[in-house]
Amino acid sequence: MYDIAIIGKGPAGISAAINAFARNKSVILFGSDSKKVILSPSIPNYPGLPDIKGVDFAKRLEDHLSSTNVETSSKKVNAIYSMGNYFSIQAEKDVYEAETVILATGVDFKKSIEGEDSFLGMGVSYCATCDAPLYKGKITTVIGYNEESYKEADFLSEICTKVYFVPVFKMEYNFNSNVEIINDTPLRFEGSMKADRLVMKNSEILADGFFVIKDSYPVSSLVPGLEVDGPHVVVNRSMETNIKGLYAAGDITGRPYQIAKAVGEGQIAVLSACDYLDKKASQ
Amino acid sequence: MYDIAIIGKGPAGISAAINAFARNKSVILFGSDSKKVILSPSIPNYPGLPDIKGVDFAKRLEDHLSSTNVETSSKKVNAIYSMGNYFSIQAEKDVYEAETVILATGVDFKKSIEGEDSFLGMGVSYCATCDAPLYKGKITTVIGYNEESYKEADFLSEICTKVYFVPVFKMEYNFNSNVEIINDTPLRFEGSMKADRLVMKNSEILADGFFVIKDSYPVSSLVPGLEVDGPHVVVNRSMETNIKGLYAAGDITGRPYQIAKAVGEGQIAVLSACDYLDKKASQ
Ligand SMILES: Cc1cc2nc3c(=O)[nH]c(=O)nc-3n(C[C@H](O)[C@H](O)[C@H](O)COP(=O)(O)OP(=O)(O)OC[C@H]3O[C@@H](n4cnc5c(N)ncnc54)[C@H](O)[C@@H]3O)c2cc1C
Ligand SMILES: Cc1cc2nc3c(=O)[nH]c(=O)nc-3n(C[C@H](O)[C@H](O)[C@H](O)COP(=O)(O)OP(=O)(O)OC[C@H]3O[C@@H](n4cnc5c(N)ncnc54)[C@H](O)[C@@H]3O)c2cc1C
Repeated sequence: MYDIAIIGKGPAGISAAINAFARNKSVILFGSDSKKVILSPSIPNYPGLPDIKGVDFAKRLEDHLSSTNVETSSKKVNAIYSMGNYFSIQAEKDVYEAETVILATGVDFKKSIEGEDSFLGMGVSYCATCDAPLYKGKITTVIGYNEESYKEADFLSEICTKVYFVPVFKMEYNFNSNVEIINDTPLRFEGSMKADRLVMKNSEILADGFFVIKDSYPVSSLVPGLEVDGPHVVVNRSMETNIKGLYAAGDITGRPYQIAKAVGEGQIAVLSACDYLDKKASQ
Repeated sequence: MYDIAIIGKGPAGISAAINAFARNKSVILFGSDSKKVILSPSIPNYPGLPDIKGVDFAKRLEDHLSSTNVETSSKKVNAIYSMGNYFSIQAEKDVYEAETVILATGVDFKKSIEGEDSFLGMGVSYCATCDAPLYKGKITTVIGYNEESYKEADFLSEICTKVYFVPVFKMEYNFNSNVEIINDTPLRFEGSMKADRLVMKNSEILADGFFVIKDSYPVSSLVPGLEVDGPHVVVNRSMETNIKGLYAAGDITGRPYQIAKAVGEGQIAVLSACDYLDKKASQ
């Protein structure tokens, strides 16, 4: 059981981790390097590091993090469940436990496919490695927004009779023969009890299961019961969410989408978590 | 008329200034270097600059600020008045005008002298250079918390018949002969309509006016009508105070008293001010 699990390795998550270390808590940090930071050509407004390149700032964050004893995992977190007094965190095929959680997953500007939310868990999934066993010998479709989706489709092709792959971004493929690439634009999922059809601009696909593989997911589907406002998590000035022991920080809490804000909120969130842990321990 | 006046040159104020510059606003920043930052022996928890010394961080902030065109003034701000659509800012003997104000004055841990608040403007003043004319040919008392208070007492001794100087910290003096140094501990001000007596641990002083000279003042006396909660300014998640066009950031908005928080809030506050200005301009 960790004291604190931090979901997201951008400025908000790393700030939370550094501050948790300063407060001597056991911490696990999930996520891969923030693409947003790396893509920033030059950051003019992070006090103390004028006009630093995104890649250089990412390197500094990484070095700072490495100077702590914070455990890191590049796994993607698929679900976070509040168990009353602690949290159960599903990261790909593994389950972790922590007394508190800091959500720092950033915001995703990509629009969801119509029906993606409502069919989630009913024919639509965000994680092939998690849900593949359900689709052994069946037909599946992967809608791929990133390179990881390639691996997921490849993995599914070993289990399923047929895999349709709908790439939403450009890349090179070298798939098994049972993978069919469909170049079209996904519009909506259809079905009655569960999704069984992906309607696209010019064609449609019938399948038993659909996997949407992208960098980040609507936060409401990550944490059941979480109070959200559109793409944002609702927090107060202490970065508390509506769920006890769960905090949020960074872009995910709303505008402005900026690094200094993310770093400040990561600090506030984790210090709130530390206060909560200290109070719990003294009870 | 400036777009934005920032009061305080600590991490919160400097972050606000850097971000205002990035948004192309005309800015004036008041204050002298943050003693808190300079006094920090080593800062372990500002992401990107692991274990940086306070003096080195202060230097980096100063360099970053110098790379902008932000106007700075080392003057102390004595009062900020909302004029409805803009603010009038009294800084020592001068008056400045700005459409918006960011309060980033930090918190002062020193306890006020009993009656200091209630007699303010009625026999008690925070600024000798401002209020001296009222006390020509009279008897005054300076309660000095810093080196600046020495200058203030010296200045008063040229105008007043007699000046009592009550040093609350150690320093060397070389005053005119009409300055009397009293080594005692101030407890409270007394008087009926106005303060006319300072009661100390072992003695008391009768005078026409009392000057309390310290590094920072209770924020409620700086801005009439400002909603406060003890030593803190009440703000929402956008760093708005109860006064339109007035924002606050950093230690002054409450715990945790930390640099990353201050920097993040400075950014949010100024971006809120920019949004407000842009909306006003488009009306
Ligand atoms: C081109 C560009 C230029 C920019 N320029 C500036 C600038 O000059 N100044 C400025 O202040 N800001 C700038 N920004 C914005 C800045 O990058 C963001 O505000 C900042 O990165 C937000 O930090 P964050 O930690 O909240 O989220 P992010 O940086 O988005 O990090 C999110 C993290 O969460 C992880 N994650 C997401 N979902 C999961 C999951 N389910 N499981 C595990 N991990 C997950 C991701 O891998 C990532 O590590 C720019 C952004 C872009 C795109
Ligand atoms: C010994 C020590 C060690 C610390 N170590 C750390 C650490 O390791 N990590 C960390 O994150 N934090 C640390 N802190 C806390 C950190 O220094 C503060 O949280 C931070 O400085 C707050 O920034 P601020 O801009 O809100 O206020 P301040 O830094 O206090 O700045 C306030 C500014 O306002 C100005 N001002 C005040 N009144 C007026 C006025 N009337 N007119 C004009 N200007 C005015 C002052 O001159 C100053 O420039 C430490 C503090 C101390 C004292």
